[in-house]
Amino acid sequence: MVNNISNTMIFTEKPNILSYASVVGKKEAQGPLKDDFDKIIYDAYGGKETFEQAESALVSEAVTIALQKGGFSASDIEYAFCGDLLNQCIASSFGMRNFQIPYIGVYGACSTMALGLILSSITIESGACQKAICAASSHFCSAERQYRFPLEYGGQRPPTTQWTVTGAGCCVLSKHTSDNKPYIHSAQVGSIIDMGITDQNNMGAAMAPAAADTICKFLNNTNTRVEDYDMIYTGDLGKIGSKLLYELLEKKDIDIKSNHKDCGVMIFQNGDMDVHAGGSGCGCCASVLCGHILNSMCEKKQRNILFIPTGALLSPTTVLQKESIPSIAHLVNIRI
Amino acid sequence: MVNNISNTMIFTEKPNILSYASVVGKKEAQGPLKDDFDKIIYDAYGGKETFEQAESALVSEAVTIALQKGGFSASDIEYAFCGDLLNQCIASSFGMRNFQIPYIGVYGACSTMALGLILSSITIESGACQKAICAASSHFCSAERQYRFPLEYGGQRPPTTQWTVTGAGCCVLSKHTSDNKPYIHSAQVGSIIDMGITDQNNMGAAMAPAAADTICKFLNNTNTRVEDYDMIYTGDLGKIGSKLLYELLEKKDIDIKSNHKDCGVMIFQNGDMDVHAGGSGCGCCASVLCGHILNSMCEKKQRNILFIPTGALLSPTTVLQKESIPSIAHLVNIRI
Repeated sequence: MVNNISNTMIFTEKPNILSYASVVGKKEAQGPLKDDFDKIIYDAYGGKETFEQAESALVSEAVTIALQKGGFSASDIEYAFCGDLLNQCIASSFGMRNFQIPYIGVYGACSTMALGLILSSITIESGACQKAICAASSHFCSAERQYRFPLEYGGQRPPTTQWTVTGAGCCVLSKHTSDNKPYIHSAQVGSIIDMGITDQNNMGAAMAPAAADTICKFLNNTNTRVEDYDMIYTGDLGKIGSKLLYELLEKKDIDIKSNHKDCGVMIFQNGDMDVHAGGSGCGCCASVLCGHILNSMCEKKQRNILFIPTGALLSPTTVLQKESIPSIAHLVNIRI
Repeated sequence: MVNNISNTMIFTEKPNILSYASVVGKKEAQGPLKDDFDKIIYDAYGGKETFEQAESALVSEAVTIALQKGGFSASDIEYAFCGDLLNQCIASSFGMRNFQIPYIGVYGACSTMALGLILSSITIESGACQKAICAASSHFCSAERQYRFPLEYGGQRPPTTQWTVTGAGCCVLSKHTSDNKPYIHSAQVGSIIDMGITDQNNMGAAMAPAAADTICKFLNNTNTRVEDYDMIYTGDLGKIGSKLLYELLEKKDIDIKSNHKDCGVMIFQNGDMDVHAGGSGCGCCASVLCGHILNSMCEKKQRNILFIPTGALLSPTTVLQKESIPSIAHLVNIRI
């Protein structure tokens, strides 16, 4: 059962992350987290005919490896919670179509991985299943042509932009069976926050207020402090969004600077890799979680972390229609 | 708690649908279900500047009316599960951004309303919340230009096509508090089925196998027969998909013909209204459920129904790339 404290979920039965996997592209493998990824696909097409098929293959690979690492077959898994950034979430639906796992599509833009973790945990705690997987993905080439310009156009990117990560991550969640594996302790589902930012090339600024809102609510409801956590990982605020998050939280007397990392900043060697404000995309925090972060936890280097992916709930159509950018941040407290 | 019988969910605490509402456009209001809708918006723009904004307004209206009918305010609701067909599900995110309800985006194409009902029910049964809403929408004009042609082009539609419903539906779900309101008894989450159909103008054919698969699994796992249900409602198979569903089920010695209706066939006066094979879109089954079907149940004309929306998990990009159409069907057993 889940305890509900002012809309913070406390998972009393500690659903485990029994196994996990990450698959990324060539550029991500040149970054500082290289050794934590399970598989690197050097060809942007991944041997497929289109970038969209390549992204679906990232999903399939991440799921396949996560199952293998845990010694599971697809038939052991009762539900799959998956999502991505492509129109109609096709990376997930096409990537998952051969597994025959009952499928629940989720959409939270770049916050999707957290939604999957939360919904898997709820479903397990409700008794509806014993095992579920969640996965999220993005691909630089499929995202660029959908959100911005065809790659061939060579559009110039403003310094505030972020670089969509080519990658996918997958977790296998289960009823608590091991005290030696990470588990989901608690979670906070975010509300939609729209502060009127309209610059689609500055997603960090649009999403920082959502992250601040969710973090404040969670710390308040759980009566915990920043220092209680080994690390607070945001999803893809990037360098600019992270600074804004610090400013917003300082106004509430919360200082996370020394305890915070952003997956979008971590995944690339900023300054060297032409990614401007950092990495982004559903696959950014998904591959960092299912690589570096969970590896650190399994090695007991970290025992209690907050994972807070943020999502910008816009589309190219709303940008053209001069709408502002509604954003959201979901938080998951993972412990071991 | 949820009982799990071979992946069929039995909701032991009978989460109630305490209130519900439907909002539709002008054409839907000319159909036979007119009197069951809560609000009709005669202007395709709904007083907004774009079709996408008009669709968001359908969502906001349906949610507002459902809350009003139940005597609730937005702050009574702990989670909102919403989705639609637009790229990045913007009808939902923009429609919901002013409610400040913790928001979980779902994507199941035209099966989205069932996903919302199922996830709301699981979340309530897990103890994570007392009340949740779910909503789904579609709009003929926003869908046509996204999936097919700009309206001004006047593209001719083959006879197998369906007409995207302009409409939205919203349900307020709650822990069981009333024996006099409908409740969610059980559910079956579908698996992705892809039989190789590539004709995007014949969605019914693509989705019928998914409906057949989910229905068979549910009847089998619950050890029930077609005659045990007052009516089996599919989402938007239309006339052609419904016939195919009968054929597929007959091969398994299941005859649902006399106990089946399809929301896509019900909502328009076929033959008169130029909709070809029937209605479609997330808003089709959502508005028929949150109008005609739940009204019939509250009037005790029907006490035990299956609601089985189907979704085609394609995108215009996958069509251009000559992919086949993966489909899915989720089933919800609603009783009173």
